[in-house]
Amino acid sequence: MVVVGSGPAGQKAAVQAAKLSKRVVIIEKARQLGGTSLNTGTLPSKTLKDTIEYIHGLGRRGLHQLGAALTKQLTLPDLMTRKDQVIETEVAVITNQLQRNSIEIIQGTASFVDPHTVSVMRSDGHIDHVQASVIVLATGSRPRRPMEIPFDDVTVCDSDSFLRTTKNPTSIIVLGGGVIGTEYASMLAAFGVKVTLIDRRTQLLRFLDQEIAQALDSQMLQNGVAIRLGQEHLGIGVDEAGRPAIHLHDGETVTADMLLYTMGRIGNTDALNLPAIGLSTDQQGQLSVNSQYQTAIPHIYATGDVIGFPALAATAMEQGRLAACHAFQVSESHDIKVIPYGIYSIPEVSMVGKTEEELAAVGVPHVAGRALFREMARGHISGELHGLLKVVFHRDTHTLLGVHIIGQGATELIHIGQSVLTYGGTVEYFVHNVFNYPTMAECYRTAALDGLNRLHRQSPPQ
Amino acid sequence: MVVVGSGPAGQKAAVQAAKLSKRVVIIEKARQLGGTSLNTGTLPSKTLKDTIEYIHGLGRRGLHQLGAALTKQLTLPDLMTRKDQVIETEVAVITNQLQRNSIEIIQGTASFVDPHTVSVMRSDGHIDHVQASVIVLATGSRPRRPMEIPFDDVTVCDSDSFLRTTKNPTSIIVLGGGVIGTEYASMLAAFGVKVTLIDRRTQLLRFLDQEIAQALDSQMLQNGVAIRLGQEHLGIGVDEAGRPAIHLHDGETVTADMLLYTMGRIGNTDALNLPAIGLSTDQQGQLSVNSQYQTAIPHIYATGDVIGFPALAATAMEQGRLAACHAFQVSESHDIKVIPYGIYSIPEVSMVGKTEEELAAVGVPHVAGRALFREMARGHISGELHGLLKVVFHRDTHTLLGVHIIGQGATELIHIGQSVLTYGGTVEYFVHNVFNYPTMAECYRTAALDGLNRLHRQSPPQ
Repeated sequence: MVVVGSGPAGQKAAVQAAKLSKRVVIIEKARQLGGTSLNTGTLPSKTLKDTIEYIHGLGRRGLHQLGAALTKQLTLPDLMTRKDQVIETEVAVITNQLQRNSIEIIQGTASFVDPHTVSVMRSDGHIDHVQASVIVLATGSRPRRPMEIPFDDVTVCDSDSFLRTTKNPTSIIVLGGGVIGTEYASMLAAFGVKVTLIDRRTQLLRFLDQEIAQALDSQMLQNGVAIRLGQEHLGIGVDEAGRPAIHLHDGETVTADMLLYTMGRIGNTDALNLPAIGLSTDQQGQLSVNSQYQTAIPHIYATGDVIGFPALAATAMEQGRLAACHAFQVSESHDIKVIPYGIYSIPEVSMVGKTEEELAAVGVPHVAGRALFREMARGHISGELHGLLKVVFHRDTHTLLGVHIIGQGATELIHIGQSVLTYGGTVEYFVHNVFNYPTMAECYRTAALDGLNRLHRQSPPQ
Repeated sequence: MVVVGSGPAGQKAAVQAAKLSKRVVIIEKARQLGGTSLNTGTLPSKTLKDTIEYIHGLGRRGLHQLGAALTKQLTLPDLMTRKDQVIETEVAVITNQLQRNSIEIIQGTASFVDPHTVSVMRSDGHIDHVQASVIVLATGSRPRRPMEIPFDDVTVCDSDSFLRTTKNPTSIIVLGGGVIGTEYASMLAAFGVKVTLIDRRTQLLRFLDQEIAQALDSQMLQNGVAIRLGQEHLGIGVDEAGRPAIHLHDGETVTADMLLYTMGRIGNTDALNLPAIGLSTDQQGQLSVNSQYQTAIPHIYATGDVIGFPALAATAMEQGRLAACHAFQVSESHDIKVIPYGIYSIPEVSMVGKTEEELAAVGVPHVAGRALFREMARGHISGELHGLLKVVFHRDTHTLLGVHIIGQGATELIHIGQSVLTYGGTVEYFVHNVFNYPTMAECYRTAALDGLNRLHRQSPPQ
């Protein structure tokens, strides 16, 4: 098997194939393994977020002055330096894992010769040819950089170049309200930067439960993010002072010290010479796949960011693993339907299972129960009062159908609900479970009780 | 039903009975509801721990200077003040919950007249009599204060008076290495206080998995706690400078600014007039109960700290609830066997299910798998590198048997494993589950894989 790309999707596809005793080669064009996730994506942004969230948390613990002093003292580039040591360690972990599984790594740029042959152009110009019965494309994506945006990667950045910034902006415009834009907008605001978040859509993160999305909206507003949605036709330039300026369609002009453009990503498919094998991509350079992650050519799979939504590291890993299983006819009894989504904004958001909107659309009778973090002893202890955990369950069977969380630790907390969902459990599990006291996990019990009480009021027993 | 005591056990017993439409009275001797848990126990110490852990975390995030400066700037009494607002909110939550369930509260001291009658002495000297078919004793416990300890509640404190301290000690002796002593010793050390932890036992927290207990030991040592175990015969006094001094049996003398005595707690049973109904307690004032929490008199139940181990709020709640269910013949289909233990030390410890030692003792063939926090991307992001998550599963069936965690967030993280344990799941659940990336929850997958690899090496497939 040949895997193109060493990000989360490529790694897991390779390791799975190796565990099935297949000969595996990974082709990686960058000098460093790990892909975008490690080097300019998930990991750096999460490290940045962790530090900012931590400083932000001082205020919540009654240490406001200290938090404010710290924010004044630290610059954005200070925070960025932490990520390097985190990246370094993770690269070592990955390299070690691939070596342990005897996976060969070729550094170079892959390009199709025919459906079973890939040429690899090394940095010294040398070209190898590699043949394989199965090929997994896990080439990832890169920020879209449209012509009309005056990128200089100093004051006008994409999400890659932003991580190398040497500026310490007091204000920033984030253009693009997807996951990446929302994460950066929320964390920069928490760090005290004046943020304007602009998007052409009229609603942020449409795949979320609407109540959670609205809570995120209002908490970002509260943290000082100015959110400007439905901004279709924008004039983007640089004003006399050299500051990025955006002319909104209502006539207003927003200027700031920096502009971070996060509107869309492009699949890394241009170098692959896909026309040679008759494969094509959409306008975003993304490949289409079936539910087994096969492209139009059955032995060529595509996984991770290069196939688009949800473009999350955790899902990419699982896609890679499932593609390798399918390619080598391993029946995957653990066909995963219960995939969590994690958004590392401040506050964090995570969900698993169905939203109320999805259930309503297909007519499944359901009830939701809520717990506010401020109802929990743990919430008061950590000063995390604005969170919300919501369980959604079937009205008749009480089977858990979805969990939606906003608040610090959401991405960890979701996995409790996820296991109950996987085992087909009911909300009664949460009612009768003994939770450590005080924990945020207790939210599950409170939410379950709230939902059951709601149900009881709706339809009192005869 | 009459419930004596309004701590976690009493509250949940009362609420459960009320939900079964029983008339319920709670008798509480203190002016404030909530018991020890709320007022001098669980909640205040966890609030203190949260703040200290937070400051401690600054260092782990490369903000050492700041953490040090902050520790210098803040005093112990500063940290104590935060707990008051947390307590106040929680009292409101509890009062509200009891009122909503129409539970009557009588403030006063309860004393048995006969097995169905309790007299209540109010603070104004007025005496009421209350009769009930079921009585739940949930009177809790208080610190043991032996005569030979020169308590002055300023420099020599028990865990109640310590919370009112106005001192900012640079050194402290913690006498007693149970849960309370370990929690305080570890958090004070993390705050920069020079701590000596002394216990007569030769091992701390014997009920823990031994590997985890040793890890806690070594991490406390690393945080600067001097641990002196097996100290049977102690001379305790105050030196010329008015500082507490302890003469260890090897001849050494340890002095410090303060002494915190945490050796044992006494069940609050003396005021109950138990001899009048023929009930007796052990030397610690604790009542014995059967597995249904019945005392020797079947309609009189006892739950929570007053029956001793584990004396944790979470377990107390469940005991209260189960006692009420049993008293009113509600079949409790959700008979909870999967109870987690949480120790809010720095680092936190939590466990659920069986330890390796317990399994070995009864001859259950088992395998353990480990994940170190430093193997996780999330571990590097938060600088939490010393944690360990251990899954223990059946060698043949792979059924999960226990989870043992040390490290920040352990008390939350344990609940993922707990649900798999409750559903009788196997470690393969963790292997195939999609975890958000990066999270500490991913430890479960790594630990499961480690265990399965270990098993594979032990007994390669034929």
